[in-house]
Amino acid sequence: MVDKKSQGQQMWGGRFAAQPTDIMQSINASIDVDRRMALQDVAGSRAHADMLAECGIISEADNEAIQSGLDKVLEEVEAGTFPYRVELEDIHMNVEARLKELIGEPAGRLHTARSRNDQVVTDFRLWTRGALSEAQIALRALQKALVARAGENAGTVMPGFTHLQTAQPVTLGHHLLAYVEMIERDKGRCSDAAKRLNESPLGAAALAGTGFPIDRDATAEALGFDRPMANSLDAVSARDFALESLSALAIAATHLSRLAEEIVLWTSAQFSFAKLSDAWSTGSSIMPQKRNPDAAELIRAKAALIAGQFASLQGAVKALPLAYAKDLQDDKRLTFEAFDTFGLSVKAMTGMIETMSFNPDAMRAAAAKGFSTATDLADFLVRELKMPFRDAHHVTGRIVAIAEAEGSDLAALPLQTMQTVEPRLTEDVFSVLSVEASAASRRSYGGTSPERVSEQVEQWKKRLGLET
Amino acid sequence: MVDKKSQGQQMWGGRFAAQPTDIMQSINASIDVDRRMALQDVAGSRAHADMLAECGIISEADNEAIQSGLDKVLEEVEAGTFPYRVELEDIHMNVEARLKELIGEPAGRLHTARSRNDQVVTDFRLWTRGALSEAQIALRALQKALVARAGENAGTVMPGFTHLQTAQPVTLGHHLLAYVEMIERDKGRCSDAAKRLNESPLGAAALAGTGFPIDRDATAEALGFDRPMANSLDAVSARDFALESLSALAIAATHLSRLAEEIVLWTSAQFSFAKLSDAWSTGSSIMPQKRNPDAAELIRAKAALIAGQFASLQGAVKALPLAYAKDLQDDKRLTFEAFDTFGLSVKAMTGMIETMSFNPDAMRAAAAKGFSTATDLADFLVRELKMPFRDAHHVTGRIVAIAEAEGSDLAALPLQTMQTVEPRLTEDVFSVLSVEASAASRRSYGGTSPERVSEQVEQWKKRLGLET
Amino acid sequence: MVDKKSQGQQMWGGRFAAQPTDIMQSINASIDVDRRMALQDVAGSRAHADMLAECGIISEADNEAIQSGLDKVLEEVEAGTFPYRVELEDIHMNVEARLKELIGEPAGRLHTARSRNDQVVTDFRLWTRGALSEAQIALRALQKALVARAGENAGTVMPGFTHLQTAQPVTLGHHLLAYVEMIERDKGRCSDAAKRLNESPLGAAALAGTGFPIDRDATAEALGFDRPMANSLDAVSARDFALESLSALAIAATHLSRLAEEIVLWTSAQFSFAKLSDAWSTGSSIMPQKRNPDAAELIRAKAALIAGQFASLQGAVKALPLAYAKDLQDDKRLTFEAFDTFGLSVKAMTGMIETMSFNPDAMRAAAAKGFSTATDLADFLVRELKMPFRDAHHVTGRIVAIAEAEGSDLAALPLQTMQTVEPRLTEDVFSVLSVEASAASRRSYGGTSPERVSEQVEQWKKRLGLET
Amino acid sequence: MVDKKSQGQQMWGGRFAAQPTDIMQSINASIDVDRRMALQDVAGSRAHADMLAECGIISEADNEAIQSGLDKVLEEVEAGTFPYRVELEDIHMNVEARLKELIGEPAGRLHTARSRNDQVVTDFRLWTRGALSEAQIALRALQKALVARAGENAGTVMPGFTHLQTAQPVTLGHHLLAYVEMIERDKGRCSDAAKRLNESPLGAAALAGTGFPIDRDATAEALGFDRPMANSLDAVSARDFALESLSALAIAATHLSRLAEEIVLWTSAQFSFAKLSDAWSTGSSIMPQKRNPDAAELIRAKAALIAGQFASLQGAVKALPLAYAKDLQDDKRLTFEAFDTFGLSVKAMTGMIETMSFNPDAMRAAAAKGFSTATDLADFLVRELKMPFRDAHHVTGRIVAIAEAEGSDLAALPLQTMQTVEPRLTEDVFSVLSVEASAASRRSYGGTSPERVSEQVEQWKKRLGLET
Repeated sequence: MVDKKSQGQQMWGGRFAAQPTDIMQSINASIDVDRRMALQDVAGSRAHADMLAECGIISEADNEAIQSGLDKVLEEVEAGTFPYRVELEDIHMNVEARLKELIGEPAGRLHTARSRNDQVVTDFRLWTRGALSEAQIALRALQKALVARAGENAGTVMPGFTHLQTAQPVTLGHHLLAYVEMIERDKGRCSDAAKRLNESPLGAAALAGTGFPIDRDATAEALGFDRPMANSLDAVSARDFALESLSALAIAATHLSRLAEEIVLWTSAQFSFAKLSDAWSTGSSIMPQKRNPDAAELIRAKAALIAGQFASLQGAVKALPLAYAKDLQDDKRLTFEAFDTFGLSVKAMTGMIETMSFNPDAMRAAAAKGFSTATDLADFLVRELKMPFRDAHHVTGRIVAIAEAEGSDLAALPLQTMQTVEPRLTEDVFSVLSVEASAASRRSYGGTSPERVSEQVEQWKKRLGLET
Repeated sequence: MVDKKSQGQQMWGGRFAAQPTDIMQSINASIDVDRRMALQDVAGSRAHADMLAECGIISEADNEAIQSGLDKVLEEVEAGTFPYRVELEDIHMNVEARLKELIGEPAGRLHTARSRNDQVVTDFRLWTRGALSEAQIALRALQKALVARAGENAGTVMPGFTHLQTAQPVTLGHHLLAYVEMIERDKGRCSDAAKRLNESPLGAAALAGTGFPIDRDATAEALGFDRPMANSLDAVSARDFALESLSALAIAATHLSRLAEEIVLWTSAQFSFAKLSDAWSTGSSIMPQKRNPDAAELIRAKAALIAGQFASLQGAVKALPLAYAKDLQDDKRLTFEAFDTFGLSVKAMTGMIETMSFNPDAMRAAAAKGFSTATDLADFLVRELKMPFRDAHHVTGRIVAIAEAEGSDLAALPLQTMQTVEPRLTEDVFSVLSVEASAASRRSYGGTSPERVSEQVEQWKKRLGLET
Repeated sequence: MVDKKSQGQQMWGGRFAAQPTDIMQSINASIDVDRRMALQDVAGSRAHADMLAECGIISEADNEAIQSGLDKVLEEVEAGTFPYRVELEDIHMNVEARLKELIGEPAGRLHTARSRNDQVVTDFRLWTRGALSEAQIALRALQKALVARAGENAGTVMPGFTHLQTAQPVTLGHHLLAYVEMIERDKGRCSDAAKRLNESPLGAAALAGTGFPIDRDATAEALGFDRPMANSLDAVSARDFALESLSALAIAATHLSRLAEEIVLWTSAQFSFAKLSDAWSTGSSIMPQKRNPDAAELIRAKAALIAGQFASLQGAVKALPLAYAKDLQDDKRLTFEAFDTFGLSVKAMTGMIETMSFNPDAMRAAAAKGFSTATDLADFLVRELKMPFRDAHHVTGRIVAIAEAEGSDLAALPLQTMQTVEPRLTEDVFSVLSVEASAASRRSYGGTSPERVSEQVEQWKKRLGLET
Repeated sequence: MVDKKSQGQQMWGGRFAAQPTDIMQSINASIDVDRRMALQDVAGSRAHADMLAECGIISEADNEAIQSGLDKVLEEVEAGTFPYRVELEDIHMNVEARLKELIGEPAGRLHTARSRNDQVVTDFRLWTRGALSEAQIALRALQKALVARAGENAGTVMPGFTHLQTAQPVTLGHHLLAYVEMIERDKGRCSDAAKRLNESPLGAAALAGTGFPIDRDATAEALGFDRPMANSLDAVSARDFALESLSALAIAATHLSRLAEEIVLWTSAQFSFAKLSDAWSTGSSIMPQKRNPDAAELIRAKAALIAGQFASLQGAVKALPLAYAKDLQDDKRLTFEAFDTFGLSVKAMTGMIETMSFNPDAMRAAAAKGFSTATDLADFLVRELKMPFRDAHHVTGRIVAIAEAEGSDLAALPLQTMQTVEPRLTEDVFSVLSVEASAASRRSYGGTSPERVSEQVEQWKKRLGLET
């Protein structure tokens, strides 16, 4: 005879006299977090039950009862009527208990040749696989937005900065495409993580495998995994898939944060390179004229948040002996939060990029300041006067010093003045001193010239399925 | 005439044509988090309104209306009936809007000479001050539990480990008191953080102070702050108080994590030094005999979690220009979570310590292994034979090597065997080779001998207000 | 005429009147760190000069002078006679200045169509690519050591732990192979990182590309890159390749740390599962009998170190606008240190694994404790008595409770006693209650049975090129 | 007879047959790092030897020999002639071995009643105490520089930003003083850390105290500690003092990073608020006109570096059982690096602040943009027309919208235009719409008005001992 208390209380509690205290329950329960894996849990149980029946470990009748019970559970989950109970600790216990209420005894057979350890991590891998896929879709949408704006601005000249000092004229299209490149690598990291995690831990049982004649290939295939994991201890202990996913997100969020920083700068009064749309900016309770780039600032902060979540999980996993330990419990909370945060950040960035307006005049004016064509002058000296590069550099430096002293732009400096430094200079030099000429001249592959940028835009449009 | 939309929609939205999108609202709203500061917000508003009236900036009648409206708000918050609205973004807007519904026009005067920037950070400092105080109270309760168990075990001999290798016999009481010392410093850090943050930002307004003739000393005093902050830009921008609090928690959590690690080790079958009570351990769904130290493992993980939260906030604040930026929004979420997590950890640790049972026999047996009294032998050689320490060390090493080869304990090695290494040894040597003698001999201040430990226990009982 | 000061002082110093102070030089110079990229720097310059000559941008004679000068530089670097000068800031300036000393004017032409920005990051990518390759080689050697020891111990029974509580018997071979699996994924992450970074930034110049008619495909090919990077701003600004490499190392180090923790546990007197060789343990200045697992402890710490280095670099890169900023300077120091630390850790782990001795008797004895075959009993009830799993679990729990109360092992409990709980039990039950039977029974794919482990060992030997 | 190998080889190596491999030595040795504690080590040994003689544990003659030997060691260390040997692992072994070479047998008596465990941590606490003191001195120098510049600029109007949007006019002096406040709290954290760590671990011996009749108060006093630590296990295990110091530095570095970010912004062409001196900026190899804020960027990065070092140490200490474990070895490297990095950052920042020139015209012009006196208008409506704050806010918003549409500043908007929104407005309104009037009006305590700033400057000059 089985203890009747087993329904509706801790499943493992049979032996214990005293009940865990409230604090114990608070620190131990995870249902508030892992309820998000309800669909994955049901999918895993379906596959497991089908396999058990196929292998003759449970009867077909039991399997049918289980499947129809899980149908009902799924329905309740999707309808929002599933009765989550915190005293059942986690989603797995909740589903199992509900199944028992719905179908009685056969529910008890579902856990044959399975343990919470392999069940949890199967669900978690399925969830993470889906989340990585969604992250890539969102990043792709952001790439599309960037490419579209880059296409419009292939010839828009702006200052290229190093050290936030004007360095050389670049084109806005070129600048935006730099992020398209970064994001492509970010997608690659998500994709690699998804591939690497796509092995099934199901059938590892508690940690050692099982004596039941199960078919792990069958459950792996049913759940879309590439293969079963080859070592049951590894299957239940490893969390590198979560760490890798978090690191991919942290790196991608760093790119978003860099772009967000630029948006904050560009939309400042000092830069005035761009203006956010109403939908993607906020006002102030005391300063009614403000158009604050809150979303950009939040994206900037989220990069720190996600990096902290990677650090937290790494710190929790570090130095844990095999196999499962409860230290791993927060893996899901950290991972869910990181994907949520990241998803919001990508979407907010996409919205901002799509709707922000640029100010080409302000950009052009800024590009013309700060002797930004000095390198063009140096290159001219190398090319036309065959000067060694380092000598050309020094000559240019001296000309710039004069221009700076006279408060003049390079393009406005009289030829005679330049000739006091380098007598062989001719009127031809002015052909390289405008910002448009400078940008247009950088035609090396990957360079900032409008023609190179347009080529890149066309290629990206093809790769991303945009109309060209 | 004022726009009637102002009630029940974004307070700053007057100028904007388009509404923020859902994503913008998701990433921007903080009400789910900062509703926890409702009481602090009301307290801050009360103090502010009183001061405004006192200074003649608003009328007494307006102040009375505001105070009675805030009474009602407080009542609703405490009764759980306060109508939080996510479209109002944060707790401050929610309280203000509700106040307007309740009392009408005077509500609009409450925000005179105040901005959300100084209001938010006032609330947050009040909250953090309270949380630091609660953390200290919880840590003190843990100290009491440790001291009580230390008192029971002042003479219980166990192995002292270095590198997890048996080093020298120590007493369990001594070991537990080591954590009492660490926690005392943890409390000190919390206390220092609380003192340092206890300055009032209220009256800094948006960032620059205000032209209204306010009395910042009055509001500071009313809210229990030591003084008003001396620089308004600093007041709204600084978050070092949150960082310091998180670092204090992270360090304290590290101590808890060390003790948790020991509990995991001690309750393993291999050590068997201790057994957790039913209330503070859990079972397994597939292995019914397990008594798992889940709470200890969770505490171990939480140290990583809190350290990650410090890292997140530091990363978000780093390199922000003055004054307020939205990057700071997650300061509260991170801080609230860290204090919640920490509070649960301390309480769970207290529960475990209070209820765990120790196994003195297993400890004593372990202490006697591994030639743990070798140092005592070396010290004997120094003391009795006037050998230089390093020579005594080498002689001891050679005797240990013989004992190891013969599979014998030091105390069981025949005198003649020892004399093959050092002929001057006499029967007296056996007086220092038992674990009890070893522990009892370490009577230096801070040492492990039962008498020293009992003295420390008495002192701690006095300091903590425990009966002695 | 060119300023004669240019040799032997800051190359960019031409314009400045005052010299940077010592502090500025201390914080700014990187030569102590980046001198490690001397070979990469020479290789990059060789490829660049060849290409410049090929494209007619410099003369063949200049190229020959440059190549032979670089031969000499290389010779000096390898002989340790290269005159590094801190006042030249970094390795790139040092090589260039030395080249000028050696060959005069042609040295000045080498920098044509190149900037320190693309030069530095080219060197750094080359260095990191090599380091990732070495990391994989080291990890492969560790896998070989683990597989060899796993092969010897395919049938060695030990306790499988969850929560550091004895859970089920497993085999030592199975346990060691779990790490082989983790390391395989670690190698995969290193390999993915190396593939993703293998694009050439050379030719991006300062940030915008160049007007010289260079051939970036040629330099990319000469340096073993797959292709030139498609965006010059991205080329000089991106550090995701370093972040990805650090995250791969941090995750791999976490695995090493887990194994190190187990070595610390296993070599403790309490476990006594294993003994380190003399070469991989240390003693104590005061406790001559100690055999301390210092290397394992250091490896454990290094996982925290490398994770901190990832955090540092992420924090430095986060929110930097394009293109190059000096914040990026520490990228190399962090990356070099992380690879050094990681390399030492892997090699130390390999040495420990190769030379440690195991104690099968102690492992077997530990495996038999703690009712580790309780799951086997539950599975027996399911299989033989067709009990639903959850009911079998409760029956087993009650039998374990009796055994615990009587201080008996499950295998030693009389049948009659078990029958008081479940009358249908027969003598057959004893066939599943020994630890050997338990381990042998877990024959599911990935399970712990000696036959499964031996199969895995054979497969790994083939994959790793070990004799089988 | 003692093994002659003891000089010049590992002190603990007596028992071991095999020598540690090179890798083991590489990962294990710390002499390259801890040689920086040579002075502390000698000081600790002096105090210990004096106490041993005073207590009659060693003879006066031995003590004299030891003291004179240590004189010689100190001399060698200071002269740079001390023969550091990596095979002696750490500074403590090096000093001890050298002492033995210099004075023979008495050197062997110095280690009586002491272990490397308490010796190391004594040295480390002394070092950290000194470093915290130096950090405070450096921070104080930075405060002086800031206060001096604030005094010069008490009336210099600049834009106060929130979200990097112009919010309200502030004064540059006020802005600089905000950092003086932050740094004062940073000094407080350093000071608190120094006080808390100032307890002597000496006499804790390996972990359990000692049986020798030592006087721990005497050594504590001789080394300037407030008292001996009360628990020997705590004394050798605790590293919270290092963690607290690192967290204090990380937080202070965050403040420096914020100021550095502002310097980067202010010295950009777009802001042009300030110009760095030649000594504190660098040029570019290809762009001769650049004046790059490298030091500011490096300071910004260092905040991430130090935070990562805190994370590393926290991760290493987390979950370590008592007492000493080798995981702690990197505590010193991380701490030394953090203090070095921090010291350089503070000094570089001081140099930049002292020598940078400000551009009041550009600041004033920027302050006047962006309707920065909108709040002043709203406050005027409240004060003069008794409008509730929220209504005044909406009126102001509508006036700003008109000004924005007309491309006009608020101060330039005709009264009639304003009256279309609020007919009760009079000419008086223009008295609050200039940036000077706005700044001057914010006279609340802590506010930005020149008179408040001048008061603060005077107070700080007194506190910092500057002439007023």
